[in-house]
Amino acid sequence: MYSVTVRGHMMIAHSLRGEVFGPAQQLHGATYVVDVEFRRADLDADGIVVDIGRAAESVNAVLGALSYRNLDDESAFVGRNTTTEFLARVVFDRVVAAIGNGALGDGGGAIESIKVTLHESHIAAAAYEGRVHGAI
Amino acid sequence: MYSVTVRGHMMIAHSLRGEVFGPAQQLHGATYVVDVEFRRADLDADGIVVDIGRAAESVNAVLGALSYRNLDDESAFVGRNTTTEFLARVVFDRVVAAIGNGALGDGGGAIESIKVTLHESHIAAAAYEGRVHGAI
Amino acid sequence: MYSVTVRGHMMIAHSLRGEVFGPAQQLHGATYVVDVEFRRADLDADGIVVDIGRAAESVNAVLGALSYRNLDDESAFVGRNTTTEFLARVVFDRVVAAIGNGALGDGGGAIESIKVTLHESHIAAAAYEGRVHGAI
Amino acid sequence: MYSVTVRGHMMIAHSLRGEVFGPAQQLHGATYVVDVEFRRADLDADGIVVDIGRAAESVNAVLGALSYRNLDDESAFVGRNTTTEFLARVVFDRVVAAIGNGALGDGGGAIESIKVTLHESHIAAAAYEGRVHGAI
Amino acid sequence: MYSVTVRGHMMIAHSLRGEVFGPAQQLHGATYVVDVEFRRADLDADGIVVDIGRAAESVNAVLGALSYRNLDDESAFVGRNTTTEFLARVVFDRVVAAIGNGALGDGGGAIESIKVTLHESHIAAAAYEGRVHGAI
Amino acid sequence: MYSVTVRGHMMIAHSLRGEVFGPAQQLHGATYVVDVEFRRADLDADGIVVDIGRAAESVNAVLGALSYRNLDDESAFVGRNTTTEFLARVVFDRVVAAIGNGALGDGGGAIESIKVTLHESHIAAAAYEGRVHGAI
Repeated sequence: MYSVTVRGHMMIAHSLRGEVFGPAQQLHGATYVVDVEFRRADLDADGIVVDIGRAAESVNAVLGALSYRNLDDESAFVGRNTTTEFLARVVFDRVVAAIGNGALGDGGGAIESIKVTLHESHIAAAAYEGRVHGAI
Repeated sequence: MYSVTVRGHMMIAHSLRGEVFGPAQQLHGATYVVDVEFRRADLDADGIVVDIGRAAESVNAVLGALSYRNLDDESAFVGRNTTTEFLARVVFDRVVAAIGNGALGDGGGAIESIKVTLHESHIAAAAYEGRVHGAI
Repeated sequence: MYSVTVRGHMMIAHSLRGEVFGPAQQLHGATYVVDVEFRRADLDADGIVVDIGRAAESVNAVLGALSYRNLDDESAFVGRNTTTEFLARVVFDRVVAAIGNGALGDGGGAIESIKVTLHESHIAAAAYEGRVHGAI
Repeated sequence: MYSVTVRGHMMIAHSLRGEVFGPAQQLHGATYVVDVEFRRADLDADGIVVDIGRAAESVNAVLGALSYRNLDDESAFVGRNTTTEFLARVVFDRVVAAIGNGALGDGGGAIESIKVTLHESHIAAAAYEGRVHGAI
Repeated sequence: MYSVTVRGHMMIAHSLRGEVFGPAQQLHGATYVVDVEFRRADLDADGIVVDIGRAAESVNAVLGALSYRNLDDESAFVGRNTTTEFLARVVFDRVVAAIGNGALGDGGGAIESIKVTLHESHIAAAAYEGRVHGAI
Repeated sequence: MYSVTVRGHMMIAHSLRGEVFGPAQQLHGATYVVDVEFRRADLDADGIVVDIGRAAESVNAVLGALSYRNLDDESAFVGRNTTTEFLARVVFDRVVAAIGNGALGDGGGAIESIKVTLHESHIAAAAYEGRVHGAI
């Protein structure tokens, strides 16, 4: 199995509902340093997993649409806790959707699975990984 | 698959028996920067893999019980080489036992697998990963 | 010159006023991974720059008083832009004040200068460094 | 599953053919920081996955044979794009061949799978992982 | 003293002349992960050292003009060894020139000194630091 | 000012005497990831601060003479606490002595100052920096 990973980041505000979150129930924020790993069994004719330039653009577009926002005000997340693991899934779903819309070109169809990791500090991270086809 | 990873560390002395270890047969020591990754298929009602505060406490309790010690003197390790890979398994087993004892609350039962990685320097690491149920 | 550096972090929400900030004028947030470096010319009788345990406690107390908050609502920062460089100075001032209050014990008086670095992502950081005596 | 990972690096020049590579079609270069992860189900009698000294030597020998070269001039790569993912496979194949030649001793035969990751910058990496037996 | 640091990277090919360079006399290449630190004594009215967006753009423009090239063919470097330390100075000089040309706006004039660090691998780096005024 | 930094590591056992050290009074150990930064005002005729190959060899020789040992048994350290900051000075002194003995060649004489940083974990480090001439 081959993979290519690109890194970006987003900076958001949010609050979390539920006693389990302790002080994180208050409005606060986070920088998420985000790694998106694209996987497929074989390389294409150019010898690549994916056009890394387009992959980076797609990831940055997904992160840009979330960054510099208060996620508590986003209609897409009403009634949901925007935990790190939940956001890993959001990024996964949106990258998969971008692939479906051709953002990675024809080669995007060969991507089998994706892992999205959000590093929220030097001591904590969360991730979601899944298959691309039938993922949403 | 979702995951949450927490990082801690321990500082220990030990020696290793066997020609393969070369100078590491002498009493020396190591800092292990330890990543413990908790995995499960779905998020709970709060939108999390695990209460990250309790997870960090559990990991730090396991590491604290090993840290600032000469592992050559620990009765638990008599006759064993406390290699990095062996210690990764020790941490895994003890975190799994803590889950069994309710350290992560009810949600701990949903953890399917755990990966424990010990970074011993900037150029070497070892890991153990396994399923939680039936692990010990 | 000797130094000891301890690392902690804080997670905050805020917004910044001024066209120069572009989308960061919106309410958003950040994780700051914070390095505090304590410097002095000579070691004490124990062979240390500072009791690293007390230093870490002091730094974490300073960071804890800022973390999990919306800095736009903090009375201490009314009328100020809580930029990364401004917050580096805030942490510096508060650590210096803690030293003045004896948080590092008698040895704290020997600390000559401090550098506080806030890493806001994998591609950006800000810092403030200054002398301890007469600093505030 | 246990694993041991060793890190090395290589510094190479190359160019890539195909419009997808944009400016990387020009002769340029890269430092690849390389992680090689060796995996097996059980530890040997010494409590290890592999003799980490021999593993590091083998990895460094493989990287040394590629480093400080213009890969466009290497007969082994005629007609191939030496992309990061392609080179991850090259390193994998050569480490597997070294194991076959006894570079890791008898214990090398117990290695089940290997993952080779090449970090080409702070924001991009590629990897190849596969089973050792029947790999080439 | 305050500072802001931005990170970028460049990927180049080159060779070095002189026995001291051993195998690096052959055409090879490197990824340089580059940190540029801007320093000044006081913050401006917005509470910043520099407009970090413009600073990042300026740094990336300087790095972009060097990246994806064979430095042996660059007329600017004829007769010079493009060592890591030499390139740190080149980046410093070009960032200083950009400031002189107004790339950082009026605030650029307040930058007192700059440090440029080039990380060429996980085990080696070089840097140049100097004052901005009268630097070239 | 130019600088070149090389990284190595050492793994040692030791104990520390004094209540301030808490559990670190027990025999334990550490991995120190060590950065040695060599500084000088100008580059030599080859365009370098120092022959990085010889610099790395010298640093590794110094670290090798400390590694895989119980520092409590070293005659050089009788009656001393081998704290991280103390060991940073030991490495500094030994690198300076190696320069005096010609380990870096003629160019070593041009090194003005050196900074030695020992990272003992992901959250703590200590350093010593000083001028080379008249340092011991």
